[in-house]
Amino acid sequence: MTAPMMSTVAVVGAGVIGRSWALVFARAACNVRVYDFVPEQAKRARAWFEAELDRNRVGGVLTAAQTAAYRERVRWCGTLEDALANAEYVQESGPESFELKESIFAELDQAAGSEAILASSTSAHDIAEITAGLAAARRCIVAHPVNPPHVIPVVEVLPGRETTNEVVERTCAFLAEVGQTPVRLKRYVPGFLLNRMQAALVREAVNLVDSGVADVDAVDAVIRDGLGLRWALLGPFGVAHTNADGGIRSYFARYGEAYRDLMDDLGPTPTFDAALVEHLGRGTEAMLRGVSHAELLRWRDRLVIGIRELKRANPLPVRDGADPGPGAKPD
Amino acid sequence: MTAPMMSTVAVVGAGVIGRSWALVFARAACNVRVYDFVPEQAKRARAWFEAELDRNRVGGVLTAAQTAAYRERVRWCGTLEDALANAEYVQESGPESFELKESIFAELDQAAGSEAILASSTSAHDIAEITAGLAAARRCIVAHPVNPPHVIPVVEVLPGRETTNEVVERTCAFLAEVGQTPVRLKRYVPGFLLNRMQAALVREAVNLVDSGVADVDAVDAVIRDGLGLRWALLGPFGVAHTNADGGIRSYFARYGEAYRDLMDDLGPTPTFDAALVEHLGRGTEAMLRGVSHAELLRWRDRLVIGIRELKRANPLPVRDGADPGPGAKPD
Repeated sequence: MTAPMMSTVAVVGAGVIGRSWALVFARAACNVRVYDFVPEQAKRARAWFEAELDRNRVGGVLTAAQTAAYRERVRWCGTLEDALANAEYVQESGPESFELKESIFAELDQAAGSEAILASSTSAHDIAEITAGLAAARRCIVAHPVNPPHVIPVVEVLPGRETTNEVVERTCAFLAEVGQTPVRLKRYVPGFLLNRMQAALVREAVNLVDSGVADVDAVDAVIRDGLGLRWALLGPFGVAHTNADGGIRSYFARYGEAYRDLMDDLGPTPTFDAALVEHLGRGTEAMLRGVSHAELLRWRDRLVIGIRELKRANPLPVRDGADPGPGAKPD
Repeated sequence: MTAPMMSTVAVVGAGVIGRSWALVFARAACNVRVYDFVPEQAKRARAWFEAELDRNRVGGVLTAAQTAAYRERVRWCGTLEDALANAEYVQESGPESFELKESIFAELDQAAGSEAILASSTSAHDIAEITAGLAAARRCIVAHPVNPPHVIPVVEVLPGRETTNEVVERTCAFLAEVGQTPVRLKRYVPGFLLNRMQAALVREAVNLVDSGVADVDAVDAVIRDGLGLRWALLGPFGVAHTNADGGIRSYFARYGEAYRDLMDDLGPTPTFDAALVEHLGRGTEAMLRGVSHAELLRWRDRLVIGIRELKRANPLPVRDGADPGPGAKPD
């Protein structure tokens, strides 16, 4: 494996997201420095990391040499200064609180190298606000992963007002190099792309159960054995394109009015009160029929990796400037 | 292959959905009778069916004996009466117009066997309204597939006011027997489960492009390389359960308020005016980089089948009344 463009990376905050980032970077041959302000959290992250490597070695996914190499690349640091020394890229993954992020970035501004890229895993906040007034603001950027990033590749990349284009480009290039799929947003909106679309789907899913149209398992089945099978391959626009013989223009020309009526009929924001959450909890437990939380996560990870391998082995046959061949041009 | 519980099935309406249903039933060893009120449509459906079998035989998915057997089981009928003779199950798949469905069901009421189940592929209408006043109303039911049903298994099943429980049970059992995944709705809502959730996601996706937050490819990437990888395995409730260490109750307790804020901020119903549709069309074409419509459909079908095989080979390890084993019980 050739050396990555950022040879030393710091992960600051070692919760569920931070620990998974550590694995992403170690896998890509970076030197990884992990730190958490809460020593107990760092300890749990290290235990998870070790268990994950062991499980993958026993399962034949990783060789003993690979697990040894990954282990060797990660240092679990006792101080922030130690974690930041020589780091060219910092992935902040602290708790999702504006005040905490603001205070962490103020520390990074002081303690990180003067050219280091300071990326935040925030799913909720505007990096321009978090880093307002900091000297490092031009090097700060959102790099919001999907849980867990060592399994799901998409990372939403969003610069602040002061972030330079060079920082955006280098962040995207680095994320692609370590095996992720960077996706660029042009401007800040709450929830970015991912959580807005997830919230839209969840809102309607919750309404369908809450209003008694169907139970939890029925709603989930429509996604996992229906819409989700297409969405693992094509987003909503790609799917729309496949759903009419004439492609997406003809799809929206034909169904736009029906869509408008349906969209106007969608349910309101649910309360998420205790009774509703209990109802959803019971329905979900009934659906999962005794599968433990840990088993479910392992199953999800294994199958997501399987789907990604299937896609890698069968790329979409794009033409990209090559001779489109006979039949590809309109008559 | 053992004989299915409904040995003879009629497909009435041979558009994109009807022709795919014909393949579902032929594959499951039913005798299939296909009819369309528009002879040209029936001819196109037959050509598609033949091409699909040839392609799968050449591709090694089907043996020559299988394609011959499927062909033999399907009769392309010149009259509705011929198609309905001896049919125990009718899958109506005509155009999505209430008036047309009403008139087709009036004909089915007269011409189909007195015990035949009359199922509609409608994605939009209430079967109780379509069949109001018909003697056959107790045998009429919605069986709404996802496009294309021979690839995607979910079928939304929804009885009308007069539909008997026995008809609901037999329809679900038969659909499961032919390899589909029946999902029961408890009452009619416009768009059922599937199109409501799809509309919710599409509405926000269109808004994100329309308001300049991201381009078509970025929005689609967030689904196909992010949320869609999870949704091919778990619906929104299963995903919520995996996204907090304490499961779904803890997930909504922790994120319910953030979700409410985000849900209240989601975009309005788009206009789908010509400029917007053109913008989405250009973005989608740029994303697909010269892949033809036919290639895209074949790629989607092949990979969806691959994902289903992966899931079949790796079922969720449910416990279902078996001894949950050590560690599964709370301490």
